Amino acid sequence: MLVTPFIYSFTLRLHDTDAAGRLFFAHLFRHAHDAFEHLMTALGTPLETMIRDGQTLLPLIHAEADYHQPLHHGDCVQVQVTITEIRRRSFALHYVFLNQRHEIAATAHTVHCQINADGSAAEALAPTLRTAFTRFHHSAIT
Amino acid sequence: MLVTPFIYSFTLRLHDTDAAGRLFFAHLFRHAHDAFEHLMTALGTPLETMIRDGQTLLPLIHAEADYHQPLHHGDCVQVQVTITEIRRRSFALHYVFLNQRHEIAATAHTVHCQINADGSAAEALAPTLRTAFTRFHHSAIT
Amino acid sequence: MLVTPFIYSFTLRLHDTDAAGRLFFAHLFRHAHDAFEHLMTALGTPLETMIRDGQTLLPLIHAEADYHQPLHHGDCVQVQVTITEIRRRSFALHYVFLNQRHEIAATAHTVHCQINADGSAAEALAPTLRTAFTRFHHSAIT
Amino acid sequence: MLVTPFIYSFTLRLHDTDAAGRLFFAHLFRHAHDAFEHLMTALGTPLETMIRDGQTLLPLIHAEADYHQPLHHGDCVQVQVTITEIRRRSFALHYVFLNQRHEIAATAHTVHCQINADGSAAEALAPTLRTAFTRFHHSAIT
Repeated sequence: MLVTPFIYSFTLRLHDTDAAGRLFFAHLFRHAHDAFEHLMTALGTPLETMIRDGQTLLPLIHAEADYHQPLHHGDCVQVQVTITEIRRRSFALHYVFLNQRHEIAATAHTVHCQINADGSAAEALAPTLRTAFTRFHHSAIT
Repeated sequence: MLVTPFIYSFTLRLHDTDAAGRLFFAHLFRHAHDAFEHLMTALGTPLETMIRDGQTLLPLIHAEADYHQPLHHGDCVQVQVTITEIRRRSFALHYVFLNQRHEIAATAHTVHCQINADGSAAEALAPTLRTAFTRFHHSAIT
Repeated sequence: MLVTPFIYSFTLRLHDTDAAGRLFFAHLFRHAHDAFEHLMTALGTPLETMIRDGQTLLPLIHAEADYHQPLHHGDCVQVQVTITEIRRRSFALHYVFLNQRHEIAATAHTVHCQINADGSAAEALAPTLRTAFTRFHHSAIT
Repeated sequence: MLVTPFIYSFTLRLHDTDAAGRLFFAHLFRHAHDAFEHLMTALGTPLETMIRDGQTLLPLIHAEADYHQPLHHGDCVQVQVTITEIRRRSFALHYVFLNQRHEIAATAHTVHCQINADGSAAEALAPTLRTAFTRFHHSAIT
């Protein structure tokens, strides 16, 4: 069983930075999504399979981030991911980005909604997704 | 005098999309920042000059977006930018992304804080910035 | 009739740069592809229509660039695009990137090959593409 | 001692793909540079330290890639990196990208030149760099 929070790590690369010498803020969202993809694979419901099959799409309807400490080129960053909410056809994730001194450099939050192949809202989350998310979510408490 | 909202337009390119056939969400923030850079130049306070001089840095402390309609490859997008708040050492911008049918495809919000070259919080916004922002902000009302 | 070279312009944004204070080299290819997309639209054969229809795909089989002068945040860059070769099922483009002093900052070269929806090599370039490319190519000489 | 080729692995993420359902070609160069950064750290000469110190910069003067097989979302890619040339003030790297069936999906080649902080060409490669590169280069033969 996966233990929550799910841990994903990465090294901040040159292309993540900008001329101000720090992480360009938008790239934090790219890393958050990498962590999400990694989690989905660990849950046995890889995103690439869903997109290839074209039946289940999980586009973001909301994304936000708070930046507390600058992140620099070469920093080893740990991302802690939790599922914070499971609704009828949507779910929310929270991300904590820790720098190498184990300080919170940033946090992020994303909300994903299941839609059908034609773009209409899904009746409800796919049962396999709901089961996987619920099991992972509960591992936080029990 | 600049009229608010400030208008910035772009065409959604192939690299903005992903295998799900839509805008990859994180790239919306890149376009928001492009609109912000464009506005700063129009205000006579180009970001590149500030970063090159190294005295005034305006990193983001918060960013968020809501996604209402998918954006696709080739879409002509209009961004309407307003300054929504001017505080002592920070300011906030709001962005409305309109698709070619003039529907709201997404909105975004960013908060920027002025810091010194050493990373410490600035005493207050640089006077030239405050003046430029205030004049632009007020053009919305008067 | 389009005159060759085709001109595409852009401003180098913060996210194009890295902590070394210059354009991150890989982003030059993104701008080259933007210029290519722009040209395709001008030729009446927009890339997004082809990808949406799914019958004609033009993936790159080769890309290269030479970097002569650094490009910096805020630089206004002009890209001059020419079609240098039209073969049976492939074509090649050349890009010259001029900085604001009208010096050659970089050059790039891409080769694209037409494939079918199933990934197999196309028998030949689509007639509309061949006609559009040939007309544009010849405008360089006549 | 590091054995050549140096191996770097990554999973192709959603943001690496485009609406045509494949890797957007320019992102291959981003991954090549990630592999280069990883190698530099393994050699004891991390790029971030050089850029932070500002004395030794290694901008690319040439980059090229050939694309043999499409790479898709979720693909596990192995990059094999070798140093192919060490000149007075420049060096060249070669990258082979293998897909999960261990087929060559792409190859890339980059040439880097050492410059001084003021942008002028360096007299010669820094001795620590030359030593590290030469040792790694020779591990291919001996």
